[in-house]
This record gives sequence, C-alpha cells and structure tokens, in this order.
Amino acid sequence: MTRLYTYWRSSAAYRVRIALNLKGISYDAQSIHLARGDQKQDDYKKINAQGLVPALVLDDGDILTQSLAIIEYLDETVPEPRLLPGDAKARAHIRSLALVVACDIHPLNNLRVLKYLKNELGQEQAAIDVWYRHWIADGLQAMESQAKDHGGRFLCGDAPTLADVCLVPQLYNARRFDCDLSPFPRLLAAEQACAELDAFRRAAPEAQPDAQP
Amino acid sequence: MTRLYTYWRSSAAYRVRIALNLKGISYDAQSIHLARGDQKQDDYKKINAQGLVPALVLDDGDILTQSLAIIEYLDETVPEPRLLPGDAKARAHIRSLALVVACDIHPLNNLRVLKYLKNELGQEQAAIDVWYRHWIADGLQAMESQAKDHGGRFLCGDAPTLADVCLVPQLYNARRFDCDLSPFPRLLAAEQACAELDAFRRAAPEAQPDAQP
Repeated sequence: MTRLYTYWRSSAAYRVRIALNLKGISYDAQSIHLARGDQKQDDYKKINAQGLVPALVLDDGDILTQSLAIIEYLDETVPEPRLLPGDAKARAHIRSLALVVACDIHPLNNLRVLKYLKNELGQEQAAIDVWYRHWIADGLQAMESQAKDHGGRFLCGDAPTLADVCLVPQLYNARRFDCDLSPFPRLLAAEQACAELDAFRRAAPEAQPDAQP
Repeated sequence: MTRLYTYWRSSAAYRVRIALNLKGISYDAQSIHLARGDQKQDDYKKINAQGLVPALVLDDGDILTQSLAIIEYLDETVPEPRLLPGDAKARAHIRSLALVVACDIHPLNNLRVLKYLKNELGQEQAAIDVWYRHWIADGLQAMESQAKDHGGRFLCGDAPTLADVCLVPQLYNARRFDCDLSPFPRLLAAEQACAELDAFRRAAPEAQPDAQP
C-alpha cells in the first residue's frame, strides 16, 4: 500500500493528501511530528535525506519527495480527474499559480525558517509574525490578480486543479497567523468551492489522526 | 518573436535562458534591472503582477511567469531534447531535484528576501551571508545525496535535464557568496558536464548583454 509520511500541519503534506484523495488513492499515513523534531531522526533521514515531509513510498518501495513532484507523478500515473488539464498554455497558467505558493510564499514561512529567525537571528515573535504576513500578502495578491483572468468556481475553471491544491493549505496557514484575507475575494471563492469537496475536507489538518487539540 | 524579460544575475531567468537555448528557441531579451528596481515599475507590473523575473511573452502575446512553469511549457511544446525524459518515476526524481533548488534554496536567498533581512530586520551583512550559505549548504547536501542514486555525467543520466537547468544557476549563486562546494563532488561533476555545452555557456550571467562589469 502507498505510504505517506505526513504531519497534520505541514502544508506541503496537506497538498499531497488532497491530491491522493482527489485521485481516489488510499494510503497508509505515517505521522512525522515536526514540532518535536522527528524529521531530523536518522530513521526518517533514510526515507528523506532532506528531513522534510512529505515523502511518498510507492507500492514497490521507491520513495518520492517534494510535494509538487509527487503530485505531478500522481497526475501522470492516475490521469483522472486531471489536476493539470488543458493544453500546454493552460497547464502553464495552473503551474504558475501553484508555484507562487510553492516557491514565493511557503518556503519563507516554513517551520525551519521561522525557527532560524528566532534562534539564529534573535527575532521577536512580533517581527516574525510581520515577516510571515508580509510574504503571504505579497504572494496572494499576485495570485488574486492572476486568478481574475480565469473563469469558473475554482482557481482555473470548474474543477479543482494543482493551483487549488496549493491554495487551500496556504490559506489555512494564513488564518493561523491572522492574515487579512479580505483583499482576496477570488481566492476565497475558490477555497469555498474546494471546501464542498470531500477530498479536500478529509485532507484538512484537523481531520488527521495526528492532529493535536 | 518570443520575448524574455530577464536580468543577468537572476537565477530564475538564468534557468529559462538555459532551457530556451537547449530547445533552440531564439528570443528577444528585455533586461529588467533588478538592483535598480525596474521590476517594481508599473509598466513591468502589467507584464508580471508579481514584479519578478522571468516572464516569457509568447508569439501570440500571451505571458507566462514562474521559471519552472515556463520550462515545463517549453518541454511540452518543443519536445526535443527532453528536459523531463523517462517514465513518470524518472520524471518525479528529476522534478524533486529541481524543486530542492526552486523551493528550498533559492526563495530564501532571493534579492527581495536579503533586502528584507537587512532593512526590515536590521541584520548585518555578515549574518545575512551566514543565512545565505546555510540554506545553500542544506539544500545542496540533499541534492548530492539524492544525485548519487542516479548514474551518468549529468545529474540524472547522460543528458541535461530540468535538474541540471536548476543546479547550474544555483551553484553560480553559491560561488558569489563564497560557499564551500567541496562537499558536493557529484553536483560539481554535473556542472562541469553542463559547462561543456554551448546552451549553458550562452545563458551564463556574464554572457548577457545587460551584464555589469
């Protein structure tokens, strides 16, 4: 059975959980407790040398890492429903929205980065919160502006794509840090459309077996 | 003619220059002077709302952003030589190497982030340099370890792939900040193989018309 190394609040793992659910792939969830540092243990480093979640272990034992690489793999091997539909140009627009989250927002607000700001750079929590919200607002603004070019209930049309799969966990993080989301009505509407789907609801952090109260 | 908004030292633009060259696509290079802040001008924001380079304007006037989305588009529309060859699993491994650079190293060392560390967080240049080298060493170590699973002169076989296209600009950046690259012999060997190719040499920062002495 496919095994996913995951953590309830990891937004990269959350993306992969959504994709697995949309594709109808059942999996065995192995929790790696990031806040406790499980990802730095030797046992896990044998799975993923980077010490990050997610990692997906395939039926044949091969291991895939990096959430977007995993999701592209799932989309190539289990084509329906397509997470990257349309022609090459449509796919480029979907990927570019997803990459705003994956490259321009999330890496700056990762747990390891917030820890570095606090421990190595001696920043107060208030300054770290401002940092967090700054990169979210900057990236979401770009997404809101780009998404206006696409019609449909979701970010790029009337079915969820890789762009929505990346958006929803990012908005979850934004709320944790009290970001003002009112400037992003197009993004919130897409999130609402996703929230109606069981695949998204079952992937949510609070629905995970390792969720903490 | 295809138009690329680029800057000689932007490593994301450097990736796209390499890919365009490998695919044999000639393009009109429009320089956006990042150090001077050209990317924040209204004229450029109409091209790319994010105010980042690269942006690729297609023959029909449509605009693509995000370097990896652009390169995937090029690989889908001009299939040879393939930058994502092989089966779904091979492609996942190539993408995961590329994403270590694109998600886990480069976003943390981007010009806008270094400026934030200096201006908003009041960090000295020495601390910023340590930050820069920390994320490079962390990511390259993971790549070195992953790359050992793949044979060939390049990162994933005997021809350059998306992984090499991302690696080479990242190593260029690493040298600018005096990172110790001796722990990464596998990465340096792949870089050397790339350096023998005209497509990589013509894409190098110093070979660009907007390069500063």
